[in-house]
Amino acid sequence: MEITIKPIATVRNSRVEPIDDHWAAIVTDIVLTEDMPTEVFNHIADFSHLEVIYYFDKVKDEDIVYAGRPRGNPNYPLTGILAQRKKDRPNKIGLATVELVAHHGRTITVKYLDAIDGTPVVDIKPVFKEFQSKTEIRQPDWVADLMKNYWV
Amino acid sequence: MEITIKPIATVRNSRVEPIDDHWAAIVTDIVLTEDMPTEVFNHIADFSHLEVIYYFDKVKDEDIVYAGRPRGNPNYPLTGILAQRKKDRPNKIGLATVELVAHHGRTITVKYLDAIDGTPVVDIKPVFKEFQSKTEIRQPDWVADLMKNYWV
Repeated sequence: MEITIKPIATVRNSRVEPIDDHWAAIVTDIVLTEDMPTEVFNHIADFSHLEVIYYFDKVKDEDIVYAGRPRGNPNYPLTGILAQRKKDRPNKIGLATVELVAHHGRTITVKYLDAIDGTPVVDIKPVFKEFQSKTEIRQPDWVADLMKNYWV
Repeated sequence: MEITIKPIATVRNSRVEPIDDHWAAIVTDIVLTEDMPTEVFNHIADFSHLEVIYYFDKVKDEDIVYAGRPRGNPNYPLTGILAQRKKDRPNKIGLATVELVAHHGRTITVKYLDAIDGTPVVDIKPVFKEFQSKTEIRQPDWVADLMKNYWV
């Protein structure tokens, strides 16, 4: 079974190369593609946070991995790709929870989107309080180490 | 631009019809497709929560909407599809934050996945504390009303 999807919007920001860290200062415009009607954004500013699903279009098929040490760090465990958020993954799908800064017509402006300029967006959903984790989040120690410069 | 993706796993649970509410009792197995190696799940149980991205394969193209009142309720505002989580949306992509209950070989068992039996899964990511919302979530009043029986 194959599934065909299409970009609904495009990322516009100042980051043109894929870099792992230092996303804090990046503010991003997400602009609807031509075939999306403006009304898809109606009332979006009633929400403070959105989930943005995007496509790592720069990843080559041959770079996709099924397991490995996160960022190749020998101190981290051999971890399955579905236990990592690495871009080189089956289906090349990215996901970020972002803060909505502004909405003007066919453009929304967001913070905390870790996608580079030109990235195709395939879905945007409002964050509902009712879908937040109901219990405390547990994660292995390597995550905090790997993330230490991410939002700097 | 068209993007082709493939299921990496399949939802197995007791819910065979699309129903809006009463998801609390549903426990779901997510089983890898044949072409996914077992190692993609290595160390996944080090995480308490996962984000599951799936495909609403039962949605017909002609049912996709760009805006409307959530669940057709006349008391709710005319809202763009990207400010709703409704299934009848461009690209038919679903997303849930789930609790991991167990991992055995090619199967993980989860709670709080609002997808019916047979639904194709296209990605699974671990929830990192560092990707959680950094500020308080704000949402319009209709959301709590719409969600009142969802997790019952």
